[in-house]
Amino acid sequence: MNKVALIARRYLPILEWAPQYKPQTLINDLVVALIVTIMLIPQSLAYAQLAGLPAEVGLYASMAPLLFYAIFGTSRSLSVGPVAVTSLMTLAAIAPIAAQGSPEYIGAAAALALLTGLILFVLGLLKLGFLSNFMSFPVMSGLGTAVGIQIAAGQLTPLLGIPAEGGTFLAQATSLVKNAEQINSYTAIIGISVVVFLFLVRTYLAGLLIKIGISKSLSGILAKLGPVIAIIITIVLVSGFNLNSQGVKIVGSVPKGLPSLALPPFDLALWNQLLTPALLIAIVGYVASISVAQTLASKKRQHVDPNQELIALATCNIGASISGGFPVAGGFSRSIVNFEAGAETPAAGAFTALGIALVAIFLTPLLYFLPSAALGATIFVAVLSMVNFKAIKITYAYSPSDGIAMATTIVLTLGLGVIVGLIAGIGISLAMYLYRTSKPHVAILGLMPGTNFFKNIERNDVLTSTKIISMRIDESIYFPNARFLETRINEMVAAQPQAQHFVLNCSAINAIDASGLESLKSINQRLKDGGITFHLSEVKGPILDGLKKTIFLNQLTGKIYLTHYDAVVDIAPSFKKE
Amino acid sequence: MNKVALIARRYLPILEWAPQYKPQTLINDLVVALIVTIMLIPQSLAYAQLAGLPAEVGLYASMAPLLFYAIFGTSRSLSVGPVAVTSLMTLAAIAPIAAQGSPEYIGAAAALALLTGLILFVLGLLKLGFLSNFMSFPVMSGLGTAVGIQIAAGQLTPLLGIPAEGGTFLAQATSLVKNAEQINSYTAIIGISVVVFLFLVRTYLAGLLIKIGISKSLSGILAKLGPVIAIIITIVLVSGFNLNSQGVKIVGSVPKGLPSLALPPFDLALWNQLLTPALLIAIVGYVASISVAQTLASKKRQHVDPNQELIALATCNIGASISGGFPVAGGFSRSIVNFEAGAETPAAGAFTALGIALVAIFLTPLLYFLPSAALGATIFVAVLSMVNFKAIKITYAYSPSDGIAMATTIVLTLGLGVIVGLIAGIGISLAMYLYRTSKPHVAILGLMPGTNFFKNIERNDVLTSTKIISMRIDESIYFPNARFLETRINEMVAAQPQAQHFVLNCSAINAIDASGLESLKSINQRLKDGGITFHLSEVKGPILDGLKKTIFLNQLTGKIYLTHYDAVVDIAPSFKKE
Repeated sequence: MNKVALIARRYLPILEWAPQYKPQTLINDLVVALIVTIMLIPQSLAYAQLAGLPAEVGLYASMAPLLFYAIFGTSRSLSVGPVAVTSLMTLAAIAPIAAQGSPEYIGAAAALALLTGLILFVLGLLKLGFLSNFMSFPVMSGLGTAVGIQIAAGQLTPLLGIPAEGGTFLAQATSLVKNAEQINSYTAIIGISVVVFLFLVRTYLAGLLIKIGISKSLSGILAKLGPVIAIIITIVLVSGFNLNSQGVKIVGSVPKGLPSLALPPFDLALWNQLLTPALLIAIVGYVASISVAQTLASKKRQHVDPNQELIALATCNIGASISGGFPVAGGFSRSIVNFEAGAETPAAGAFTALGIALVAIFLTPLLYFLPSAALGATIFVAVLSMVNFKAIKITYAYSPSDGIAMATTIVLTLGLGVIVGLIAGIGISLAMYLYRTSKPHVAILGLMPGTNFFKNIERNDVLTSTKIISMRIDESIYFPNARFLETRINEMVAAQPQAQHFVLNCSAINAIDASGLESLKSINQRLKDGGITFHLSEVKGPILDGLKKTIFLNQLTGKIYLTHYDAVVDIAPSFKKE
Repeated sequence: MNKVALIARRYLPILEWAPQYKPQTLINDLVVALIVTIMLIPQSLAYAQLAGLPAEVGLYASMAPLLFYAIFGTSRSLSVGPVAVTSLMTLAAIAPIAAQGSPEYIGAAAALALLTGLILFVLGLLKLGFLSNFMSFPVMSGLGTAVGIQIAAGQLTPLLGIPAEGGTFLAQATSLVKNAEQINSYTAIIGISVVVFLFLVRTYLAGLLIKIGISKSLSGILAKLGPVIAIIITIVLVSGFNLNSQGVKIVGSVPKGLPSLALPPFDLALWNQLLTPALLIAIVGYVASISVAQTLASKKRQHVDPNQELIALATCNIGASISGGFPVAGGFSRSIVNFEAGAETPAAGAFTALGIALVAIFLTPLLYFLPSAALGATIFVAVLSMVNFKAIKITYAYSPSDGIAMATTIVLTLGLGVIVGLIAGIGISLAMYLYRTSKPHVAILGLMPGTNFFKNIERNDVLTSTKIISMRIDESIYFPNARFLETRINEMVAAQPQAQHFVLNCSAINAIDASGLESLKSINQRLKDGGITFHLSEVKGPILDGLKKTIFLNQLTGKIYLTHYDAVVDIAPSFKKE
């Protein structure tokens, strides 16, 4: 029973806070939920539009995930729902498969969310959260910049009323320029006005409010209400002047009520096509979520469990899928709102879900005249903050290879799409890492006169013998560097024709994998063929225990010495300290 | 002029040995060439058959590569030509594209060789030989076993005269069993007899010859003549009894003369399809070549240059391509023959090319009655030595994750083909490596009483303070472990609520990449948010120089101390040693 309770506690973090839930916290969480609900409405609608989905799908994707995260999540502040990157990746994954807005498209989006959830779930159960390390900082940062540019460019279509097509930034930009004449002036005026308004609100409103005596945190929250105000004003304008008859695209009738629960279409061919995008969405979404969660948790010295977060995000995506939504992740801006509004428990998220549900049930008719241009402007302003070209320069200055990885990710994402850009960025990061690790520091050693220390012969005035080669490798012997070690030893032996003994100092070796072991065997055999005895010195205990299980120690032509000094003095007694 | 000479010497190793070439060496090399030529004939024909190509293509692929390697190669013994793995990979790459033996098929094989050569050339110019490290020992060994099984099973078709189809081992094996009734008894008798003969020759002949007084090295060479003898006998038998009219498949008429030089078809769609196979053939071929070259070189304390070997292998493949051949690599058995026959310079290889050319010009009519069964038997016996199941057990015992990588490579290669198996094996090796590196050893430190040393609190009775967290990470901070470090520090801080200072001991950190730097920035910011000052101690010089170029040191809330003791005493003077 106790074990069951422990497991339940491990996988259901709600059991930690729910029993201690107080009435006072309830009131606080309800207030937070009200604020966050209002802010999430434009966001949910906008990201649905970005993903090529009808408006109500954005609302659906903002209910179940919030509920599930309240049960399974370990962060007190993370808000899970549609976010920019995963919405764009959803578009990139499904646009080639089905016509935007069609039932097949909506079904594929739900299937994508299910697959993303299942992948996250498997990663969580197997504790494979470390796989997210593949997304190095240069890749994530480059992805942010490229996605920001691509989304901003894509939003020029609803924002200015210019039709454009194409899956990549390049194709879309070309199409935009070609169709520039088809601009709709009413749409453009609304779009550009909202962009300017949102920029002004974001830049100056908080400062203004603080000046007139409103508290800092409340000012911060109010300054984030810009999109809500813009939406209300534009709805009033469009319906008042009947601008939709002038070619201004509006959201139109949004179905009233809650989504019906259903599993997405089970179609193996479709799932197969969605597998790679789902994997990438899972990892990108997870990396984004965990970094936001950790940043917010540390502000209150709370703890976030990376493996449980995989499970939580998995349930959120599965929840989104069966309630007619699309892939979700923990969002930066929505979580900040949650945090700053003062969310004390994940219950605030659950109440927000309730709020969105009420909107879906009662308020969707109010959204009829909402112009797509206003939503486009909201996204446009939000994503431009993701674009950070300076990061390339700064990163390149610190680490050229990382700078190149970042630039490549950006260029390829813009030119060939998110999936190609991401895979290439990961590949380059890995290759560069492998390159660095494949050439560990190696020192040829000599004896410091009058001591029993051995030092690098290049940096110290030390005693050596033409009979003996002494070498130290400052790294574990793994497959990335195993062959390098073979080559270096071959070179050293070719350069010192009188050598009869080779002593490898193993003091810096923490592990030897199977490839490393094979290399040691080859080295031993080759040295033997060349008439040289191979010795080891200062082998760490666990390494020696491992080697004892193999035949390498029987094959070894030389001995294993406790210290390098013991080895050299045993081979050449003249080295003995007086 | 001097610089040109240096570059020429670097890229044209022939300039090293050719000027000192002596008449005596010439005679020796000619004898070696004669022996090797005889042995290469069945090999060349057999591997062409394995790759699904006409017999003459095997001869063509054995000329230009030998010539080019003599000019560009750095090994004195490596013999480059068709080998088992790359022949099978050629088959796997082209079989889905064109009908075996058709002009399109032959053209695609040449295009594949060109692409392989170009990829190797680029890798060589950019000194990207380290990419071959991706092929860890478990992957290469698993590949050898799987390829050995698959080729052996595939040769049952010519060997027994049973028709079979399918690109993977699984498909082929199923097809073989289904068609077992169609066995041709004459073919099967020839095939099985040759297999038995070759096994006996290989196992006993050398010993027998040594017993009757023939020198050990000559016996070794003669024992390798088994395939040649088998071919002569079976040709005589088939032509004498006219067995080809009984359904015994023969090589038939092989065009006389040298190949005409031509570029392979330039067809972007085709090249695109061949790119991944070409990359894998390039890397697999290179890894196989370099390890044979290094093994043989070390026996005579010669030096092999890994980057120049890329260039050399590139020219060999380009040479094979323009002379109507298919992808080539340095072969183990052919190089051993070369070495044991006593090749003193790469000129022996060039003379061998001449020998094969003479065969192509004058002797191809003799090959008319050569039964495919004899060639199949030759391959069958040769590749079975690549199969090594014991390696899985041994590797698993030493390193379970490496054992799993090996087993996966074998299973997936047999089930889904060489390309999928290789990619999966590489992926698993990388993931497991990343997993190991992503969790470096981390120690919380305390002061050894009465000293100024800090040791792991888990292993030593040390002094600590609730105000200070002291930590050491035993690894460079790279993207694979950067996020782990963030999480660990979050955990430590959550577990020690009274902490006001965090001191990171950097004595074991050799490098910090851009991801590591970002993590340090996050850690600093999060600690600051939680009211904790972040200090560094014992930072190595080059690391500090790098950090000085960034804004991290301005953001750092604490100080950088020369020693960990200095840091702790500065923060809590009560720790001071009396």
